[in-house]
This record gives sequence, structure tokens and C-alpha cells, in this order.
Amino acid sequence: MLADRVDKIATFRVMAVMDRAKALQAEGRHILHMEVGEPDFATIQPIIDAGIASLQRQQTGYTQALGIPELRQAIANYYKSDYGLEISPARIVVTPGASGALLLMSALLVNQGQTLMMVDPSYPCNQQFLRIVEGAAQFVPVGSEQRYQLNGELIGKHWQANTVGVLVASPANPTGEVLSKLQLQDIAAAVKARNGVLIADEIYQGLVYGERCHSALEVDAEAFVINSFSKYFGMTGWRIGWMVAPDWALPGLEKLAQNLFISSPVTAQHAALAAFAPESRALLDQRRDAFAARRNVLLAGLKELDFDIAHEPMGAYYIYADIQRFIDRGRWRNSEDFCFDILERFGVALTPGTDFSPTEGGHFVRFAYTLPEAGLRDALQRLASAIAE
Amino acid sequence: MLADRVDKIATFRVMAVMDRAKALQAEGRHILHMEVGEPDFATIQPIIDAGIASLQRQQTGYTQALGIPELRQAIANYYKSDYGLEISPARIVVTPGASGALLLMSALLVNQGQTLMMVDPSYPCNQQFLRIVEGAAQFVPVGSEQRYQLNGELIGKHWQANTVGVLVASPANPTGEVLSKLQLQDIAAAVKARNGVLIADEIYQGLVYGERCHSALEVDAEAFVINSFSKYFGMTGWRIGWMVAPDWALPGLEKLAQNLFISSPVTAQHAALAAFAPESRALLDQRRDAFAARRNVLLAGLKELDFDIAHEPMGAYYIYADIQRFIDRGRWRNSEDFCFDILERFGVALTPGTDFSPTEGGHFVRFAYTLPEAGLRDALQRLASAIAE
Repeated sequence: MLADRVDKIATFRVMAVMDRAKALQAEGRHILHMEVGEPDFATIQPIIDAGIASLQRQQTGYTQALGIPELRQAIANYYKSDYGLEISPARIVVTPGASGALLLMSALLVNQGQTLMMVDPSYPCNQQFLRIVEGAAQFVPVGSEQRYQLNGELIGKHWQANTVGVLVASPANPTGEVLSKLQLQDIAAAVKARNGVLIADEIYQGLVYGERCHSALEVDAEAFVINSFSKYFGMTGWRIGWMVAPDWALPGLEKLAQNLFISSPVTAQHAALAAFAPESRALLDQRRDAFAARRNVLLAGLKELDFDIAHEPMGAYYIYADIQRFIDRGRWRNSEDFCFDILERFGVALTPGTDFSPTEGGHFVRFAYTLPEAGLRDALQRLASAIAE
Repeated sequence: MLADRVDKIATFRVMAVMDRAKALQAEGRHILHMEVGEPDFATIQPIIDAGIASLQRQQTGYTQALGIPELRQAIANYYKSDYGLEISPARIVVTPGASGALLLMSALLVNQGQTLMMVDPSYPCNQQFLRIVEGAAQFVPVGSEQRYQLNGELIGKHWQANTVGVLVASPANPTGEVLSKLQLQDIAAAVKARNGVLIADEIYQGLVYGERCHSALEVDAEAFVINSFSKYFGMTGWRIGWMVAPDWALPGLEKLAQNLFISSPVTAQHAALAAFAPESRALLDQRRDAFAARRNVLLAGLKELDFDIAHEPMGAYYIYADIQRFIDRGRWRNSEDFCFDILERFGVALTPGTDFSPTEGGHFVRFAYTLPEAGLRDALQRLASAIAE
């Protein structure tokens, strides 16, 4: 009785890793969790306090479908303060997480049989939103030589009659790669030349190390930009994100949001208002700096252990490493074998690349540095033991 | 650049009513709001307090995709205590509102080109969830003679090769009609005979007046039941609901929930745990009794004013009245004309039936008794003036 699309949706391999990790923990094992894409910090106190205050004011009703006006204004102000961009609050669509934005965008833009171009490896859910609307992802395989990102040439080469647009992510999951302004311009020009739509997943925006972060809105005022309070702002469980959309898309987005969500969670919306206060930003920047320090520890350690990381990721909290050389030595068959063996015998939980890439994921592993530095050092030691065997 | 489905989604007429009502309020007019399907009460204090306590405990991370185990257990207990049903907590899927459940259900069951049968008039969003997955609603026009509900005979008459199942609502929006156990049995048997799926929208469950409420699960253990914390439990803005699904559907639902939502809002889940405490249930039942008293006032008043309400609605907080006799007198052209005129000149905001029925909605109006009794009496006086003109 299941619809055909259900069988086509793969189970996340990371869930099997997590389940096994929890079972081992229940047996008393000390497991180091580097598999989940969630900050290990709770939401910062000023945001929690704003959520509590909102509940104390009994703000429990539906809000406007596109979000409370104060939050849309605050997000617009953030683009001004952080990116020098003038974005009308009318163009900000508050959503139930970036997940909600991905659904809205897919429903708004993609007819059945049409596609969005994106790289392989990618965030695995992107293609499922397209499947829901009977569209599809059109994957372009990329490697470290393309810094795991699209470019104008690749877009030109792969564009098809049924391609609606291009979905890029910067910083990207699982690779941590950040698009420079030049790269964004190259991509935007290629999409525009084909009358396509540029969609940018910027949910890890703010989590960049050493470089300035750029928004696709700096190079394409008509881009659809998807963002989230989950990552830099640390509000995962609240389920609150947003999209910036061009004017022509807003009536359609409002109709879709009314029908699909009614509204985004009210407490999360009022709490998120506190995310932009200077004291909050200072705390969030401290956390970003902590991620930067962790990244340096993990990156240096993995390289020392001979993990193949051709281009250093500059954002998000992931390192995507090629383990082909370990596979070649005959020690592990593939990345899933590697991940389950490392978990089982050394207590380090990682995500196999097969969650992100059906083509090349068999020899990639994603490390999430959502552990304090001491934990990372412990994990590196355990990995050293595994590899030395 | 918009996908074809977007144009097919109608704007809610009630939004135009609301916008105009707000504009009139801004001019200083006293508007009586009977147009929105939201209780006029804030969430009860024990639930708010549980939300605050959860935030104080810093519970801000993602939860399991299908919901926190305690909440799934609490919902299972509710079926036992209130309906005498043994439902395994494994069959409870916590969702971001009933909206989330409708999306999951549509994606799980309906291929492109397939349909779910439902009555006209219906909750307008149902058909849009089906449109998103490139399926469709198959509307069966019903009137007061069918008590605005399907029955076995109608199902048999309208069943098509592409019909996947039947979606019923009890209590129903906009009609307030409640299905008896006999009616449910008749419907379930007709669906089963055609190897279809029975889906029951029970989001107004608990808001019934004078009759016992029945769940579709009492007559069909394999039914998909969609429910919500928004209505009886009064948690609209929190965005939290649930679905009861048969065992065979659970792996698919888990994959879909992981991909489409990651998880439901965490604070809402912990807060909802408090909804089942005896002190909460006592408060909620007081509110239900208040709705019952309002219903009696409004129903008697509308009948006195000669609104055509052939069968008295026994649930939800709506009265769906036929205004054909007023139209016949030449005073108003149709229900939209009626609603905007009554709003403009008498300050009562109502929903035209066209939001619920493209076929017959032109001579129906929905009244929501989400006003205290004094407000209802005021509205009835204003309506009396309008009709007496």
C-alpha cells in the first residue's frame, strides 16, 4: 500500500551507527560521538530565557504563516549588519527549520519530472524533498579537485531541459567547503544564463574559520537562500529557520506555508528574537571560536594519521576524509565496514560517506567535531590504534 | 518559474476577511472574530509550566524523529484511558502539528495520479497536501441530508481505480459533524471491501457535546488516525500533533519523518506531556464545557434568525449554516458578499463557505464560537440587525 517514493528513500546509515553506539553505551562502553550533525552545546541562555519569557506572556497561539513581523525584521537587520545587504523583511519567510524551507522551495519551484542540480556528495534530505513533489535531484559528482562544489563550467556541462535550477550549500555538509564570492558569481552567472533559479543552503553560515562568509544574495538578488537557527545559533530542537525569496515568489510561498504548516512554532520564533542581541552574538562567536580550535586539532590529527583530506574545509563542523588508502591496504572493505569496526572495537562513532554519496561514499567518512577538544584527542588516539593494527 | 501546482492552490478567503477585520480594528471599530479556527483561550498553565521547566532543563536538542518515548507512551495511555484501546506506543508518530501528519500520510500512501476520497465541504488544506505529492483529493459532495459525512453507499458509488483510500473527519471542520460508531463501521467496511486505507482526521476529538466521541481505531485497527494537541488540548502555536499508524507503515513513516522534519519541536513535546495530567484534563474539560454552552447560545440564536441548520453539529467549535434563503431574498449575492458586508457594516467576521466547498460554499457560512458568550450574544444582535434591514 506504500507509495512508490517510499521505497526509493534510503535509510540513513548514520542511524544504524547511532543505534549501535547507544547499545554499546548501554553495555557500559565509553563512546565518542562524532556522527551527529548537532552542536554538543545546549542553546545559549539568553535565547532560552527569551523562550521562557514568551511562555510566561502566554504567547501560545498561531502566528502569521510567514512568521512574526519582529523576527522577519530582525533577520533583515542581520543581513544588513553582517553582509551589508538591504533585504526587505517582506522577503523573509520564517519556517519550521530549514527542513520547512526546503519543502516550501521544492513545492514552489519544481514540477513533477523536473530537477534541481546539486553536487554528489550532498545533505541526504535534499533529494527527498524533491522526491516528495515527484521531482528529482540531478547529481553532479565532484571531488576534492572541485573542492566538492559546483562551478559555471560544470553547470553548463550538466544542464538539461528539465533542470529548474541549482542548489548549492556553503558551508557545505558533509564537506565543510565554503564558496568564495568569486565562486558564487561564477555559479550565479551560469544559472542566470540558463534562466534557472539559484538556491543556496546557507544553514551553516556563521560557522566559518579564517575566511569571511559570503551569502548568495551578494551576487544574486533573486536567489532563494535557505538558512536556519539550528547551527551557528544553536537552536536545533526548536525547529526554526528561514528563507529569503524574491518578490515574485512570496504570494506562492505564503499560500504554501498557510496550507503546509499554518505557522512556525511560536515559542521558537519569540526565542529566536534574542539570538541577534549583542550579548547573544558574543556567546555564539565564542562557540564558533571553540569549533575553530577543535577543527584545527582534528584536522592536524587526521592528517597525521594519513587520512586523505586534499582541501582543508573552512566551515560547518565537518571533515570529510577519503579513506581509499586504508581500504587499499586491505584492512577495511569500505566506509561502512570502517565505521562499524571503529565503533565496535574502538568506540568512535562516525558517519559513512554512503549517506551523502551513492557513488563515492564507499571510501569517505564524515567526522563531526561536536566534541570538546579532549574528546577529539581521545578519538584521534583510538583511531591511531585502529590504523596501526 | 512557479511549479504548476502553485496556481492551483487557492488563497484562503478567510485571510481576506481577517485582513479586512484587522484594518477595521485599526480604525477603531469593535470587531467580533468568529472566523478563525483557533480557541480564544491561551494554553492552560500546567502545559505552559511544563514547557518552561523543559527549557530550564536546557532540553533544546533534536529528539527522535518519531517523538520522545515518554510522549508516545502518554498518547498510548490516553487511548487506553479514554477509548479503552490498547495501542502500542511504537505505533504513535509525534508530528509537527496535524499538518505534519497530513504531509507524512500523503507522502506515504499516495502516488502521483492517485486520490483520497473525502467530502465536499472539507478542511481546505487536505487537498493541498495531496497536490504536493502530485496526487489529488476526490471530492464527494454531501449536504445536511448525509450529515455532511461519507457513508458506505457513497464510498461504493464513488470508488475509482485510482482511489487509495478515504479521509474522514470527526468532529469535522467546517460542519462540526461527529461520526457515530455505526457510521464509522459502515465506512470502514466499505473501505476494507475495496482494499483501501481509512484515514481519520480526529483533531477535534474531545470537543464533543452531548455524545461520546469515537475513534476510527475502535472499528478499524489498521486505520491511520491523525490527531493534534491544538484543539481540545489548546496548543495551537506550539505545532504538535500525532498520528496512529499500522505496524506496516512505521518504517516508511520513520524515514519520511527523518527526512522531512528531523524532529518535532522539542519544547512542545515536553510540554505536551503535561496535557494528560488529571489537573490538566479537568481544566480542558472545563473549556470543553464552555464551548458546549457557547454552542447552545449560538445555535439557538442562529436558528431564531432563520439560518438554515438542518442537522445540529455535535462537535468542534463550528456551525456551518446555509444562507440560501437570505440570498433568495435578494439581500446578498453569495456567501462572500454576505461575509464582507456583515464585516464591513456590522463588525462580525465570518468565514465564507467557499473556503471549504467550491461547489456549494457560495451559500454557506462558517461560524466559529471562539468568543465568550457575551460576544456571541453581541454578534447575534448585530446579525439580527443585518437581516432585519
